[in-house]
Amino acid sequence: MGRTRIILGIDPGLANTGWGIVAQQGPRLACVAYGCITTSKDVPLAQRLRKIHEQTAAVIARYAPTCVGIETVWFGVNTQSAFATGQARGAALVACAEHDLDVGEFSPSQIKLAVAGVGGAEKEQVQYMVRHLLALEREPHPDHAADALAAAICYTTHEGLARAALA
Amino acid sequence: MGRTRIILGIDPGLANTGWGIVAQQGPRLACVAYGCITTSKDVPLAQRLRKIHEQTAAVIARYAPTCVGIETVWFGVNTQSAFATGQARGAALVACAEHDLDVGEFSPSQIKLAVAGVGGAEKEQVQYMVRHLLALEREPHPDHAADALAAAICYTTHEGLARAALA
Repeated sequence: MGRTRIILGIDPGLANTGWGIVAQQGPRLACVAYGCITTSKDVPLAQRLRKIHEQTAAVIARYAPTCVGIETVWFGVNTQSAFATGQARGAALVACAEHDLDVGEFSPSQIKLAVAGVGGAEKEQVQYMVRHLLALEREPHPDHAADALAAAICYTTHEGLARAALA
Repeated sequence: MGRTRIILGIDPGLANTGWGIVAQQGPRLACVAYGCITTSKDVPLAQRLRKIHEQTAAVIARYAPTCVGIETVWFGVNTQSAFATGQARGAALVACAEHDLDVGEFSPSQIKLAVAGVGGAEKEQVQYMVRHLLALEREPHPDHAADALAAAICYTTHEGLARAALA
């Protein structure tokens, strides 16, 4: 049995940034915690970004992950949405870099493939598999937290695949 | 003569984030400093964003501006570009929020209108007018710094217009 590795997953968004903490010991995964950082559209943009940065830093300080899985943009979205998500992602990634986390960036299809076995899996399949893989009693809510846990799970698979390729 | 107000301008970008500091005393504007935060594409994304955040914070600490003018996305760009710029902008705005700067967001045409008198002004016209309005001996380089100074000038005009509307 190897030592336990703590992995952060982030699903960035201006209104909702999901986060999840997964503990990995060898092939075993467990959910440590998850949640969602919400910001109101009635608050000035810079303050919303500050909150995302601060609360991401607080999660990192509390659970001490050494790495983070984060989804990259999918190109079906429009410019305005990509710009808003990009800003939230930038604020969260600053906190990750300040704590020297190793960052794994994954496409939506990589995450779906890692969690549900198919790159084109439906959202419901991903959520079901997140619950199953982490042996949770119920599916994590909100969706953003489930998506964050999926990104963290993808990081562990990605690492495993990378090691397998080197072996 | 009112007291001097210090305004930061930012032209955010992942590879190049231009910044400029403008001092305003009544209707008089002066350039205090300008520069560009550059990050290499050979460095991991999160570290690039961390550098943009840190160096923006360093500029704010050094010149103590109370407000910032920043360009919003123009919708002609593609999703990938909007996402990259969004991340850089998020990293810079976190630093602005941490120092409680008042943030003015302006469209490219608002900035061109404020600086060159026409919303559809060419890039060269804007740069020429930045030099003229700030009585600089030469046009600021790189372009990103000139664009940042233009955003700072736009903030002063915007504030003036807002006050005029209230009068």
